[in-house]
Amino acid sequence: MDNMLKEYSVDYRLTAAGCTAQGELPLSTLIRQIIEIATSHANILGIGYKDLIKNRSAWVLGRLNIDLKRLPSMHEDYSLTTWIEAFNRHYSIRNFVIQSKKDGVIGYSSTVWMAINIDTRRPTDLSIIENREEMILGKDCPVSSQFRIPLPKNSDIENLYQFKTTDIDFNRHVTTCRYVDLVQNQLPLDFYDYNSLKYFEIAFHHEGIWGETVKISSEKTGNGELLTAIVNSSNVVICSNRMTFRIR
Amino acid sequence: MDNMLKEYSVDYRLTAAGCTAQGELPLSTLIRQIIEIATSHANILGIGYKDLIKNRSAWVLGRLNIDLKRLPSMHEDYSLTTWIEAFNRHYSIRNFVIQSKKDGVIGYSSTVWMAINIDTRRPTDLSIIENREEMILGKDCPVSSQFRIPLPKNSDIENLYQFKTTDIDFNRHVTTCRYVDLVQNQLPLDFYDYNSLKYFEIAFHHEGIWGETVKISSEKTGNGELLTAIVNSSNVVICSNRMTFRIR
Repeated sequence: MDNMLKEYSVDYRLTAAGCTAQGELPLSTLIRQIIEIATSHANILGIGYKDLIKNRSAWVLGRLNIDLKRLPSMHEDYSLTTWIEAFNRHYSIRNFVIQSKKDGVIGYSSTVWMAINIDTRRPTDLSIIENREEMILGKDCPVSSQFRIPLPKNSDIENLYQFKTTDIDFNRHVTTCRYVDLVQNQLPLDFYDYNSLKYFEIAFHHEGIWGETVKISSEKTGNGELLTAIVNSSNVVICSNRMTFRIR
Repeated sequence: MDNMLKEYSVDYRLTAAGCTAQGELPLSTLIRQIIEIATSHANILGIGYKDLIKNRSAWVLGRLNIDLKRLPSMHEDYSLTTWIEAFNRHYSIRNFVIQSKKDGVIGYSSTVWMAINIDTRRPTDLSIIENREEMILGKDCPVSSQFRIPLPKNSDIENLYQFKTTDIDFNRHVTTCRYVDLVQNQLPLDFYDYNSLKYFEIAFHHEGIWGETVKISSEKTGNGELLTAIVNSSNVVICSNRMTFRIR
């Protein structure tokens, strides 16, 4: 396979209407763009939705982490570039670099994707994908999403939320972006005025559905991390999250 | 002024990750794109943020309505085109047409913008803008946002919501998109499986802020409308909304 195909980039510009209160790219928008360019690149490689559905399979995002120097700011031109780092029978690791037009690299992201059978919801053996070794680009990404995220032991911050109509995606499950908003909303607006996100890691364990009420619990650990779990009414963990910050 | 400058278009493609449960463009995304291209066109015309701030003024969206044949659907190519219909000392009317690459016109939108002084929050006299008559394009738009939206008399559907960190924009107020989600969330997911949005109108009366808890009340009227008001704890109406639907 041509090396040019093994990497895929998209350019963006952050509009004023798309900014957070701090004049930056919302994390949920960055993660939506990460998912979108992963999807586009998979289509180009012939391993997209239309290809996997022939085996009644679809990609699901299992984990995602982001390591940031800073987020893109208002009116800034930035790009995302993605490539596949690894591929085995169980999952694929896909990486991303976030580059500012003026500053160069401002962040990295690494994601883990599984495929599931859409009828049984059981994992699909990725050996159905021929030539998958050929799609791998030997390019370094200095982040890893291989560590287990601890669940909060104490509940320093606790909120309840009921999933609503606009939280649901085409798979009839809660969107990734909504989970990202919910974990970020554990902290007040002015916290983000004084601190910026340094590291973000989220792992998806169970699918959330419309009408379900969840508990969002966070622990502030001794080493400056915020650990969050979103748990449903049957006490099943839907997703777990770890964030660290730096003072602005 | 060159007529070409009086109109501005942007092309979009709806990705799978960006769809609702019904495989369509989320209304809040359409409205974000409407605000974004309005902003871009204002910049081109020399009446953007950077221009108005010289008079300590900024544009605020007062009303917005949308009349839809249908929403763009998954993987569809569509465009938005905007132009100014009218301009006086108090407000400007800006229109939009939504076009599908394959089907032609699928919707129209009309918006009313005021400018306010960012220190006093009082209206700015738009006669500060020279040559404003020259920016008007004599192009028809078969929707009007000149009618008053009635407030719900009964509260057939009632929800409470507290504004959170990710609901807040760069002006430190609740984003337009969040209000759009809140009024759409008055109806359950499966309602949208059987009905599609035909007409949407929203008027903004007061600004919502972080931490505030609001009551969202809706009345189903005899003529098939859903009237919604978002009201703060001091009983001040933040915004009012009217929606009608057609059976799919």
